[in-house]
Amino acid sequence: MMRKGRMEAFSHGVFAIIITIMVLEFKVPAHGHELNALIPLTPFFLSYILSFVYVGIYWNNHHHMHYLVSSINGSALWANLFLLFWLSLIPFGTEWMAANHFARVPVAAYGFLLLMCGGAYVILARILARQGGVESELAQALGSDRKGKLSLLIYVIAIVMAWWLPVPACILYAIVACIWFIPDTRIEKKVLKDN
Amino acid sequence: MMRKGRMEAFSHGVFAIIITIMVLEFKVPAHGHELNALIPLTPFFLSYILSFVYVGIYWNNHHHMHYLVSSINGSALWANLFLLFWLSLIPFGTEWMAANHFARVPVAAYGFLLLMCGGAYVILARILARQGGVESELAQALGSDRKGKLSLLIYVIAIVMAWWLPVPACILYAIVACIWFIPDTRIEKKVLKDN
Amino acid sequence: MMRKGRMEAFSHGVFAIIITIMVLEFKVPAHGHELNALIPLTPFFLSYILSFVYVGIYWNNHHHMHYLVSSINGSALWANLFLLFWLSLIPFGTEWMAANHFARVPVAAYGFLLLMCGGAYVILARILARQGGVESELAQALGSDRKGKLSLLIYVIAIVMAWWLPVPACILYAIVACIWFIPDTRIEKKVLKDN
Amino acid sequence: MMRKGRMEAFSHGVFAIIITIMVLEFKVPAHGHELNALIPLTPFFLSYILSFVYVGIYWNNHHHMHYLVSSINGSALWANLFLLFWLSLIPFGTEWMAANHFARVPVAAYGFLLLMCGGAYVILARILARQGGVESELAQALGSDRKGKLSLLIYVIAIVMAWWLPVPACILYAIVACIWFIPDTRIEKKVLKDN
Repeated sequence: MMRKGRMEAFSHGVFAIIITIMVLEFKVPAHGHELNALIPLTPFFLSYILSFVYVGIYWNNHHHMHYLVSSINGSALWANLFLLFWLSLIPFGTEWMAANHFARVPVAAYGFLLLMCGGAYVILARILARQGGVESELAQALGSDRKGKLSLLIYVIAIVMAWWLPVPACILYAIVACIWFIPDTRIEKKVLKDN
Repeated sequence: MMRKGRMEAFSHGVFAIIITIMVLEFKVPAHGHELNALIPLTPFFLSYILSFVYVGIYWNNHHHMHYLVSSINGSALWANLFLLFWLSLIPFGTEWMAANHFARVPVAAYGFLLLMCGGAYVILARILARQGGVESELAQALGSDRKGKLSLLIYVIAIVMAWWLPVPACILYAIVACIWFIPDTRIEKKVLKDN
Repeated sequence: MMRKGRMEAFSHGVFAIIITIMVLEFKVPAHGHELNALIPLTPFFLSYILSFVYVGIYWNNHHHMHYLVSSINGSALWANLFLLFWLSLIPFGTEWMAANHFARVPVAAYGFLLLMCGGAYVILARILARQGGVESELAQALGSDRKGKLSLLIYVIAIVMAWWLPVPACILYAIVACIWFIPDTRIEKKVLKDN
Repeated sequence: MMRKGRMEAFSHGVFAIIITIMVLEFKVPAHGHELNALIPLTPFFLSYILSFVYVGIYWNNHHHMHYLVSSINGSALWANLFLLFWLSLIPFGTEWMAANHFARVPVAAYGFLLLMCGGAYVILARILARQGGVESELAQALGSDRKGKLSLLIYVIAIVMAWWLPVPACILYAIVACIWFIPDTRIEKKVLKDN
């Protein structure tokens, strides 16, 4: 049993660090001082934007989800660490994908990381909802969780697709990001009513 | 809708990390143990000071701005992430500029980053002010936002100037920093009255 | 004398950074874009999981222990820094062990770090319990601290064993992690009763 | 004017990052898996301990000082950033000193960093005390600040000494650390009375 504030504080610390650590990928072109010295960085820049948006989405939804929970038990705590574990590998996946100009295996690996993050998030949400009972606010707010299931499905499609069409697979990742871009309105409505 | 405390905590975490990550730029002269081994680090040191002051200013004004806001909606949240995105690129811009001894393109690129940060800050302030209505405290405190507009103008001038005069362009960046060095007195007055 | 909130906040910041800094170990295979380019990373991945779980356990138990304490005196403060010092060396130990494919000396060194962390944790718990008196809640919750003593014993055995059997020694480290995986039920019970 | 909580949170974030970033200095001996592969790391280890203790002391005293202050004005805020600026250079100074086996110039440079940190701390304490008036609790708690002045004097002596005797200069740094190891009893007494 843990007060949810601490778990949130720790998680947000990890989010903040992950988002900033990715900047270290940008290896400065030491003695290239013309604009075209930045061209080799384009894949890094594109994948940085994608990962930045993803971590931002998880941070945002993570906060919303915890809003409806009063305390955290042991299994939720480890489910949260499991989510942070896969999120912490995002900088690695981002760099590998960028360093190989969106080649098929790194793109599929990046999708695998997104799939594991998405799965861990679903598990965490389930545990938190079950903890509060079927009648709990979070359980009602999540409902059948169509958005979550759809995302996982798209990830799987994109991972398979990456073998022949790695760049369109990346576009699929970006589309899922767009789906989640708007904070979870189901929970947002609950929060609005409370304030 | 998000309690402003969490957004501030996350943002300040990112600020703290950005400010400290820039120290990693200083590549230690491994076996140069005389004072002149530090000479090649001079541009890094100068640009570190400039960026440190800039991040400090954003941190400071970011806090002041949030002081007048009671809650954060979805668009403010993403405007905030947009600001953090450009701020997170400051360490890269700083290193590129320093590694090339203030050559024209990296100096212009650094100015571009400052311009995007400045623009993102203006957008965030607008969204927060609009959210509270024209009558809101923040809307009144910001007024016509002359300081913000002037900064953006100077950045544009400096970016163009960098093509022929990169070092004076850097001095212009430093002048804008001086303008902002004093915390936003318009908001400071409001805060003082409240306490 | 220090309010415990600040000490926790600082400690959790350090925990969050340690856990994320270990990701920097994963050197991206720059131009290997096939799956077998990840094979050399296997030892890094395995040791990353082990260390991630260990830091997670310390974070978790650290929080639980502080739950029962009302304030922190000078010696507890330095005992806490002593614990953070050894924890901060975990990323180094992890990388050394992984880079040498679980060779005997690095495995023993990793065990030594775990032993020092475990010892520092025991010292911190003792100081906090003594501060509250024998009758204190923490003192009662800890009791004879069999789990703590057993862990230290297994570490010593594993360190000696590493000389001939480094991989089984690693398995012993993982077993201790499993023992601690479940949050300290002695304290958990106290917390449950209070809420 | 800023609520002191935010300034503390930001500062402690920077402290936590500085303390952990120094671990990145330890370059793992990639394929040296015997104990003597650690010998070249000895100076890094020694200087890491010294810097770790110093940052720990600043964190501790920083907290104590803020305990007696109710709010922060603009000049205190920049004095605080000035302190963080010099503290943020400690990892660089530590690595330079270690990489050159405590050669005279890096040792003097390290002492210079400590001197600037110490000076910035004195300035910050003065501004905070003046803000509250001569009668303020902090002003009384600080008194004539003998410990602070003595430290600065020893730093200057050690910096000069480093030219001929770099290792004894390091010992002087360690002695100052010992002086500060015990949290500021003048303030500790005040805090104790309040609780």
